[in-house]
Amino acid sequence: MKFKKYIFLSFALFLTLSLHARQTNWVEVEPGIWKAVIGKPEPYNLLTASGVGPYHEGLTKLKPAEFPLSKNEITAKIIDGKTYLRFPLDRGEQLYGFGLNFKTVNQRGRILELHVDHYNGSDNGRTHSPTPFYVSSKGYGIFINSARYLKVYAGAAVRRDSKNPPVVQDRNTDPDWNPHPYSDGVEILVPAEGVEFYVIGGPTAMNAVQRFNLFNGGGCLPPRWGLGFTQRLERMTDASGVAAEAKAFEDKGYPLDFIGLEPGWQSKSYPNTFEWDAKRFPEPEKLVKEMLHKNIRLNLWINPYVSPDAPIYKKILPYTASHTVWAGLVPDLKTDSARKFLFGTLEKNKIDIGISGYKIDEVDGGDSYLWPDLATFPSGIPAEQMRQTYGLLMQRYTTELYQKRNLRTYGLVRASNAGGVSFPYVIYNDYYNHQDFITALINSGFSGVLWTPEVRASNLPEEWVRRFQSNVFSPMAMINAWASGTKPWTFPEVAPIIKRFALLRMQMMPYWYSEFARYHFEGIPPFRAMNLEPGFQDLVSVKEAKNLNLEENPYAKAITSEIKDQYMAGENLLVAPMFTGQKSRKVILPAGKWFDFYTGKYAGGGEVINITPGLDQIPVYVKDGGIIPMGKPLLHAPKAGEKVDLEIRYYGTKPGEYKLYDDDGETFNYQKGDYSFRTIKVSKVNGKLLGSISKAEKNKPNSVGKITYKMMTL
Amino acid sequence: MKFKKYIFLSFALFLTLSLHARQTNWVEVEPGIWKAVIGKPEPYNLLTASGVGPYHEGLTKLKPAEFPLSKNEITAKIIDGKTYLRFPLDRGEQLYGFGLNFKTVNQRGRILELHVDHYNGSDNGRTHSPTPFYVSSKGYGIFINSARYLKVYAGAAVRRDSKNPPVVQDRNTDPDWNPHPYSDGVEILVPAEGVEFYVIGGPTAMNAVQRFNLFNGGGCLPPRWGLGFTQRLERMTDASGVAAEAKAFEDKGYPLDFIGLEPGWQSKSYPNTFEWDAKRFPEPEKLVKEMLHKNIRLNLWINPYVSPDAPIYKKILPYTASHTVWAGLVPDLKTDSARKFLFGTLEKNKIDIGISGYKIDEVDGGDSYLWPDLATFPSGIPAEQMRQTYGLLMQRYTTELYQKRNLRTYGLVRASNAGGVSFPYVIYNDYYNHQDFITALINSGFSGVLWTPEVRASNLPEEWVRRFQSNVFSPMAMINAWASGTKPWTFPEVAPIIKRFALLRMQMMPYWYSEFARYHFEGIPPFRAMNLEPGFQDLVSVKEAKNLNLEENPYAKAITSEIKDQYMAGENLLVAPMFTGQKSRKVILPAGKWFDFYTGKYAGGGEVINITPGLDQIPVYVKDGGIIPMGKPLLHAPKAGEKVDLEIRYYGTKPGEYKLYDDDGETFNYQKGDYSFRTIKVSKVNGKLLGSISKAEKNKPNSVGKITYKMMTL
Repeated sequence: MKFKKYIFLSFALFLTLSLHARQTNWVEVEPGIWKAVIGKPEPYNLLTASGVGPYHEGLTKLKPAEFPLSKNEITAKIIDGKTYLRFPLDRGEQLYGFGLNFKTVNQRGRILELHVDHYNGSDNGRTHSPTPFYVSSKGYGIFINSARYLKVYAGAAVRRDSKNPPVVQDRNTDPDWNPHPYSDGVEILVPAEGVEFYVIGGPTAMNAVQRFNLFNGGGCLPPRWGLGFTQRLERMTDASGVAAEAKAFEDKGYPLDFIGLEPGWQSKSYPNTFEWDAKRFPEPEKLVKEMLHKNIRLNLWINPYVSPDAPIYKKILPYTASHTVWAGLVPDLKTDSARKFLFGTLEKNKIDIGISGYKIDEVDGGDSYLWPDLATFPSGIPAEQMRQTYGLLMQRYTTELYQKRNLRTYGLVRASNAGGVSFPYVIYNDYYNHQDFITALINSGFSGVLWTPEVRASNLPEEWVRRFQSNVFSPMAMINAWASGTKPWTFPEVAPIIKRFALLRMQMMPYWYSEFARYHFEGIPPFRAMNLEPGFQDLVSVKEAKNLNLEENPYAKAITSEIKDQYMAGENLLVAPMFTGQKSRKVILPAGKWFDFYTGKYAGGGEVINITPGLDQIPVYVKDGGIIPMGKPLLHAPKAGEKVDLEIRYYGTKPGEYKLYDDDGETFNYQKGDYSFRTIKVSKVNGKLLGSISKAEKNKPNSVGKITYKMMTL
Repeated sequence: MKFKKYIFLSFALFLTLSLHARQTNWVEVEPGIWKAVIGKPEPYNLLTASGVGPYHEGLTKLKPAEFPLSKNEITAKIIDGKTYLRFPLDRGEQLYGFGLNFKTVNQRGRILELHVDHYNGSDNGRTHSPTPFYVSSKGYGIFINSARYLKVYAGAAVRRDSKNPPVVQDRNTDPDWNPHPYSDGVEILVPAEGVEFYVIGGPTAMNAVQRFNLFNGGGCLPPRWGLGFTQRLERMTDASGVAAEAKAFEDKGYPLDFIGLEPGWQSKSYPNTFEWDAKRFPEPEKLVKEMLHKNIRLNLWINPYVSPDAPIYKKILPYTASHTVWAGLVPDLKTDSARKFLFGTLEKNKIDIGISGYKIDEVDGGDSYLWPDLATFPSGIPAEQMRQTYGLLMQRYTTELYQKRNLRTYGLVRASNAGGVSFPYVIYNDYYNHQDFITALINSGFSGVLWTPEVRASNLPEEWVRRFQSNVFSPMAMINAWASGTKPWTFPEVAPIIKRFALLRMQMMPYWYSEFARYHFEGIPPFRAMNLEPGFQDLVSVKEAKNLNLEENPYAKAITSEIKDQYMAGENLLVAPMFTGQKSRKVILPAGKWFDFYTGKYAGGGEVINITPGLDQIPVYVKDGGIIPMGKPLLHAPKAGEKVDLEIRYYGTKPGEYKLYDDDGETFNYQKGDYSFRTIKVSKVNGKLLGSISKAEKNKPNSVGKITYKMMTL
């Protein structure tokens, strides 16, 4: 018996040793970013797909970080041809990220399969950008560089040998029996015999997000016009319809920067010819020129599936997948030839004549609207990896078409992933829940993507207003009501409110543009969760510490549930959208003082306020000392070189400082240093405003006209 | 240029050749069942998990079948470490099966990931038995013997090189543009470097189902008592409560064959001790004996997760998974030791003292209530394969405990898979949609499993009646209302109806028992889709042939949609359940003549009838010449050797024949030939009934008492 036991133990020891990987070797590849490799990582991954390197200069400017975890608590093993990763979790630690979720912000306790897909109403990992990156409230991030479908147990799997095991309960008698026992680890299954993965330091969660974004090249910087308004037209609109729409906006005084043409711009669609329909658009070049003359750009809808009637059909055929989508060819974007033909056709008579960008549809899935997982591609890239990266590839290669012309673009896409942070694309979808759109906006900041809570149809004027107001405080102010034909002025009873908010968006352009510059240069997402705001996370952890009486302390109640209906927009603004039917709402104001955006009045701080705004207001609050540089209510974004007068609004009582970004607004010259950050300083001295702005740098673009200062808080 | 092209073509040819598997080698392993092997199949699969061999004798009795497909249209390849299978599809061909679906019967066009899981409201492959077997309306079946998560594109993926390509449409102008283009193949992705798979001949779809079931050992034959009524008790019920419940049923005259004890029979649960609670059940052996004396058996709830307070905890610990479930150990059922300890504890003081069976809960998942996919097991079986087979293994090894005692059991389980056809278990779940329960009953017949549309809580007397009526025409007549405490007599206004149907179930026992014998010996599922009924499929294909005017031909309308609310129960009965709120319904009666089960009156044939039954009736129809052998309205199933008088009911006008099955009803002696099928013949001659039954075989069990004949159709 003893001998037998000895054999068993030896065998167990052998198993243990052979299953455990050798000590993981961590290499600090960028400041505060450590990389480890287990097994034989596949050559094709998210970073090779995007082809974007780190923005090293930005990374070096961040404060140094320590390796944030205990190295020997991170385990990596290869078993049964798959990679098993495990990262430790502390009690009270919260997790954010894992891609563009629509219903939840806190991800601890969740089980996800990260899988590019149309979002279908459940946060299960299937979404437009299932970014394999998460951030901890403890101030670090983890990124798995794999283009496979990853299974994630985010504090949901319990190891038998856990050092922090859950309490064993008896369901027979314990009324508090917990169906989800405590777990002290994040476990990730990578279906490949190796992977590279990254630990990203803080010390704050925001720092980890910044490092992740900068590691992916820094956030995208849209052209100035990209931050104006866009309207998408009925799919069969012709050239005269385009001109009429532009005129209607102009005549009625609503801003418009770019118009989107839906599938009908082509001779055939689903699958696509990628050729202008000769009847509806007999002279596309003339149309584009005329519109550019009015300061309005055109954006074209596409999906990548090639019709037998497309001129490129025969040429691209050998470089396409084994399977078709809507009987159209699926270009293998990892072959030079497929790229040559597909992107060639996107240039010719389109970008060549001034088309400003694309809306790239149906690269996300919905499974039955995509190639199957057992499709094969001539390049040998498996269908699964293609699925996870096709949106990335479409963004990458269309972006390159503009880069070589030294012109920025700003488009729409249905799928992205880690690696795509720097691509100038905004994600959209067919899902249309206003509340969930806001949650997606919050999560976009954890996932290195941009998201538009576009307005489509609305049943009621109230809904139209509420959705429009959120849209104004988002990365792309899009009206995508082509199917219903709704225009900004469709509901006359609320048209003045709509117009006021549309013009507010235009006035705020200096602020939005500066915040996007921070996204690019510092990696700070322009739209993001409250959880990244100082003074917020501390409040949330109160919940963990005490068993609060929620009847007596409604504040505690508010912070025990997820905060997914308010968000930060840029450095200084807290936005708390109203939803149809809502007459009042609670807003959590983090520690410090917060002021009403419209009136400058003190609103509260470190507390939950209950507000009852009218239909004419979306609640927005400004930080103490917050500066919002405002331009003019233009109908189109200023052109390169055009000067715009500034009104510098100052809120609260603390001295404020703001870095105003400036460049030509249209080219990539900023990447060669052709930009400036000018420091605005404002304070209140003896009840009077004292404001200053640093001088414009010589030989740098300068779009600032006359400057006035406005003390909002009296 | 020419040279370059030549090189390209050579390369393409090379790729084509290397990707295509060599000609698949088909071996007829059983009559009408052909097996092929690609790559290196994994040693652990569904058939090795179940450990059940083919019922060869039954298979040889079926008419011979031709290989039903064109062999060179079946392709199998290994790419990127995975197996790619493709089977051809014809126009108009319909597909059924792919496991226990709840909302759909026709599976053509669907994309599924076959994955053991709690059913969550969507037919996406995640279900309690994701059986990788499908049947074609053309009369053949395909079975993939893999315990992996299989991705299935059931006529949903379109190959570029298809011989029957879909029509290319232009969505711009074609109002009939089809988002799901025609596909001429079933494609299956097996995430393993090889697999064995089977083509199963017909010539009818029913024959293919029969072959599949017989290949898996033939359907299970429950003990007679298993077909009676079962009631599950409130989880904290004690021994006196059990006795009181039995007395209440007896006193009120409701049948009861076995009582289920929920988790509280144990000292602790979730995780489990598997030990009787000493307070609630101080003398379990005495209780079981007393109940058996009353002809009532006991069934015990378990899930397999072992509490630290279980006596087997320390012993079983080394043979359990890396991860726990509810802080309980997960026994590795592929180790001898784990089996010894777990099943030892299920025997000791339980089966040993007369416990009749188990209800095996939570082996299906819901993901967060199971081990993660990256758990490891000492046997080396991957977590994924364990997930796909754990329900099978629990069924297998508990069945063996009864087999070695030569006693049949009949239990409940939440997960099964191919291979489990012969295990005497019925699937149940927490989902509770009456309509979907019926669809599951229909699909169970394609999946080699049994399903109970149990009754739990009901808000209204009507609901209670409607659910109860369906329950009576199902594999297990279960009242599982322990949480709500509802009893059969809870709604006094409908109690007489409930009692009548409860007793009808008991009267029909000779019919049910004979139909289960057909399941075992012939592989015919006792509960199954209309699609397997002769004269039904032909009607459905009408739809494909013509573009019918549905206004003028409502019959055509009825058959264009899925038929998922009526089913066949045994050889002769068509059941069309009524749902709460429904006052009337349509019933499709296949070709031939059909007669009302209750009155014997002609109801129709080859047509859609519209009926308005009262609450006191579930519509049931009998085939022309149909014979239903009826016993007595007993309160408990007859014991072995007990004789029961028979009333042989005869419907319609055609001469009828029926094979009445008989054996001891309790042991496995039937497997040694200790059974008989007696032939009943009835016809109508000059308006009078002429009936006969073949003699009872000598030295075979004979439970038939006095026989009377009843002509139902006058």
